[in-house]
Amino acid sequence: MSNLLNEVLAANKNYASGFGEKGSLPMPPGRKVAILTCMDARLDPAKYAGLTEGDAHVIRNAGGRASDDAIRSLVISHKLLGTNEWFVIHHTDCGMETFTNEIISGLLKENLETATIDRNGWRNLKNSGGSSEGQFINWLTIKKQEVSVLEDVKRIRNHPLVSKSVSIYGFIFDVNSGKLIEISEATEAGKVRT
Amino acid sequence: MSNLLNEVLAANKNYASGFGEKGSLPMPPGRKVAILTCMDARLDPAKYAGLTEGDAHVIRNAGGRASDDAIRSLVISHKLLGTNEWFVIHHTDCGMETFTNEIISGLLKENLETATIDRNGWRNLKNSGGSSEGQFINWLTIKKQEVSVLEDVKRIRNHPLVSKSVSIYGFIFDVNSGKLIEISEATEAGKVRT
Repeated sequence: MSNLLNEVLAANKNYASGFGEKGSLPMPPGRKVAILTCMDARLDPAKYAGLTEGDAHVIRNAGGRASDDAIRSLVISHKLLGTNEWFVIHHTDCGMETFTNEIISGLLKENLETATIDRNGWRNLKNSGGSSEGQFINWLTIKKQEVSVLEDVKRIRNHPLVSKSVSIYGFIFDVNSGKLIEISEATEAGKVRT
Repeated sequence: MSNLLNEVLAANKNYASGFGEKGSLPMPPGRKVAILTCMDARLDPAKYAGLTEGDAHVIRNAGGRASDDAIRSLVISHKLLGTNEWFVIHHTDCGMETFTNEIISGLLKENLETATIDRNGWRNLKNSGGSSEGQFINWLTIKKQEVSVLEDVKRIRNHPLVSKSVSIYGFIFDVNSGKLIEISEATEAGKVRT
């Protein structure tokens, strides 16, 4: 068993030993909120938004993008489990700003192992064992966070399965300060809070 | 401004005021781990697995399913940011066990507002303003968690863009006890830890 797996199971044993009343929380989020944010390791949505177990649905993917799968999750969140305020939260220094569809599919075509990055960009350490499947995926990379947040709020707002009764807010999380910055008409053309 | 939005911003101000050294964490996950789990409000992966800011990528969607979008995120996680141990964690009492593609697309066709559930199943409170778009989505519902975890671990394991050097573990989180239960050959046919 790996060291990490041992550590995770030990931490879980400790968590479960103090679980108490958390064991009887209901399924629907108590504060009727859903957060869509990035998978980035520096982000802890429960901590940065002041939420605890039972409060909120949390949907995360690379970039915090409004992918079809994120919209699947959000529609279930409102339609079946009653959330009515949604936060779309991208962040500064996001990995999704460091590459393009062409760059990642090129890297994957050479090999599947972890690449390195320096001032000249991404490069592989070897060149065998890759797959050309990467070219068929839209990786949903980001050029500018203020733009991607607005695009994603708008895509969700205009989706035919999203009720107009749901409020949707757009934010950027600053990984250096821990602050949430609302993205609104003042920062980009187009209304964010809808 | 909604009460919830005010509360979130106040909580964030408090979080940012004690951010300290977290403001200089690097982008790659320090413990080289990624977790794919459900958006359910009762789950806090950082707490149940003993992780803190900077440690792990966290990917979440309805069910914790190995959707195309989750795989997009996992491939980025390993190829560009170096994670090499992945956890797929579904959970007991999951909302995804309460409906089928036909049920949710039928409910959405009637209206987009939150439905209710009782012993007779899901039903809408009104019948206007819906959309037939739901029938074009695969909602990735779950019949049995032990089966869905195995299916998802296998889908990821066999994906052409996933390196064989990544370890993949399957677990169920028990929402009543807070415990992680490993799903292995002993619980279902098929090897999970690969």
